[in-house]
Amino acid sequence: MDFLSRQRTFHEALESERLDGFIVTHPPNLRYLCGYTGSNGLLLFTGGRRTFFTDGRYTQQAREEVCGARVVIARGALVAAAGQRISAKEGVRFGFEADATTVAAAAVMRKALPRNVTPKPVSGLVMRQRIVKDADELREMRTAIVLGASIYRRTVDMIRPGVRESEVAGQLEFAAREAGADGMSFETIVASGKRAALPHGRASANAIPRRGFVVIDSGVILRGYCSDMTRTLFVGRPGREERKWYEAVLEAQLAGIAAVKPGKTAGEVDQACRRVLRRSGLGQFFTHSTGHGVGLEIHEPPRLGKGQAEQLRPGMVITIEPGVYIPERGGIRIEDMVLVTDTGCEILTPVDKDLLQI
Amino acid sequence: MDFLSRQRTFHEALESERLDGFIVTHPPNLRYLCGYTGSNGLLLFTGGRRTFFTDGRYTQQAREEVCGARVVIARGALVAAAGQRISAKEGVRFGFEADATTVAAAAVMRKALPRNVTPKPVSGLVMRQRIVKDADELREMRTAIVLGASIYRRTVDMIRPGVRESEVAGQLEFAAREAGADGMSFETIVASGKRAALPHGRASANAIPRRGFVVIDSGVILRGYCSDMTRTLFVGRPGREERKWYEAVLEAQLAGIAAVKPGKTAGEVDQACRRVLRRSGLGQFFTHSTGHGVGLEIHEPPRLGKGQAEQLRPGMVITIEPGVYIPERGGIRIEDMVLVTDTGCEILTPVDKDLLQI
Repeated sequence: MDFLSRQRTFHEALESERLDGFIVTHPPNLRYLCGYTGSNGLLLFTGGRRTFFTDGRYTQQAREEVCGARVVIARGALVAAAGQRISAKEGVRFGFEADATTVAAAAVMRKALPRNVTPKPVSGLVMRQRIVKDADELREMRTAIVLGASIYRRTVDMIRPGVRESEVAGQLEFAAREAGADGMSFETIVASGKRAALPHGRASANAIPRRGFVVIDSGVILRGYCSDMTRTLFVGRPGREERKWYEAVLEAQLAGIAAVKPGKTAGEVDQACRRVLRRSGLGQFFTHSTGHGVGLEIHEPPRLGKGQAEQLRPGMVITIEPGVYIPERGGIRIEDMVLVTDTGCEILTPVDKDLLQI
Repeated sequence: MDFLSRQRTFHEALESERLDGFIVTHPPNLRYLCGYTGSNGLLLFTGGRRTFFTDGRYTQQAREEVCGARVVIARGALVAAAGQRISAKEGVRFGFEADATTVAAAAVMRKALPRNVTPKPVSGLVMRQRIVKDADELREMRTAIVLGASIYRRTVDMIRPGVRESEVAGQLEFAAREAGADGMSFETIVASGKRAALPHGRASANAIPRRGFVVIDSGVILRGYCSDMTRTLFVGRPGREERKWYEAVLEAQLAGIAAVKPGKTAGEVDQACRRVLRRSGLGQFFTHSTGHGVGLEIHEPPRLGKGQAEQLRPGMVITIEPGVYIPERGGIRIEDMVLVTDTGCEILTPVDKDLLQI
């Protein structure tokens, strides 16, 4: 990972925002900018230099991990320690992360800063850089996605009536650990039968019924990067209506993928999925947005929802995941991760999407 | 869980803070006050009434889970939807969670509220109630702690030189899932050999060496409540110095437990541990605080650190976890959860603390 070049780019962004400095505390942003993977850290940008603050628990880890910044071990609140190092000579307009700083932390920061220095809440400045993945990141993400797909495939074999949803999730998670994953990128969803109608049906102690859809939505974190995929199986023999639903969701998903192209807006991709489901009379059952960016975090911009104006750019990695949820009957979601390329997109999730019957 | 009585108590707290209403968004606080377990929700307290807001993904779940509040499915930001429902007739002083609301979310909230309504950042108001566990909570916590201990005991059997730290963590996590846990309460720490000197040594792909300490710090979440325990084993035969270190940490831990009593401050308990380690010449290697509260979150108040003035009260559940970390040599931490009782404390973690040699 080329942390120094990321830091240079960030210094340029600060200049164009006319900021004299910036305080980064959001852990994924710290990892992105300087390589630190601990839970408590602060990276201070001032006049071309970087200083990294953490507490005594992370002394050794910070020295091993942090690139391109001097490491300071602080006592007490990191924002206070950083505030004391800022002198008004270095400028008075300091930015901090509006989306990752609580109102309480911002108050501590204000008190620690010299009186004539104004902390300015800024939204998404590091994210604006992270939204387009660099070559190192894409390599890591491809590896994470392949791992996520391979543990999914191994787990499918154990699905049958009577097996608990939580056993399926446990098997997935165990396989991920065995394969060296840092952990799961979110709480594994295994939702079977009527529970498939819950868009966020975390694996429960319920047994998989004799007949019905099973939605499996899972992802791993590998060296910090997240994967995310969903497939829907059918236990037993699907009826004509159930097949029709599945085909409509798949058609919507493919239409979404076909719409991904540099210059298209996130909202247009969402529309492409929604149009197919509306035409099939299922529009009212598609109750969430079409997808989201993925990277060091499982939910990153862009959000692929109604009216979202953000334009797609090469190097963005997003999910396309339409679904329908029919109360008391079940639900279907199909999700791939795709990479926006110069001419369209590349599907990164290497798993078949035909309806698998068990 | 008696959500209605918790809501009544919270209304009383609002009155004594002279607040006309309050906006709760922090997920553990939502779970505590109304039973909702999803990821996006807002509970609005106004003039004796409660309204709960969430988005379309959680329609069914909110209807099943939320107690004592009317459920509203909102489009767009929940703070905006709630803001629109607040009329200045109901009072103008509205509190919100300073510790759980980002600066960006607070700005959205301000815009949505009627002009003469002032949102007031308030720290820890729900937490002040949660810090003392009620009988329902203690029952759940005891069950979670026993589960955490039993999967730890099962996992110890697999520890031997050559086994990867991540395999040990994987086995722990798989056993937790099998037993019906919602998940782990934090990233499992398995730190062996020199890595035991990292206070936060998440399980790595390293193999357990032929000789040295192994620190295992793990916890489960069961029906929302967290457990937390640490034990340190020795692979091979410990030398005289290593035994001395272990005994000093154990003595410090027991001194900490003996100091727990209603009316004592969190800082006094921390001092009790620190004094023992200082006397053994290990004070400089005890680089973190002595413990923390546990409940719906893994880190809750009180913090048992230097100079903390919070007084212990019956019903608080805290960890006592001194440790020493000696660079290049290894480390030791011993952690129990204890319940503050009327006269002292009860140790909740049912696992032996003599040095286990493998």
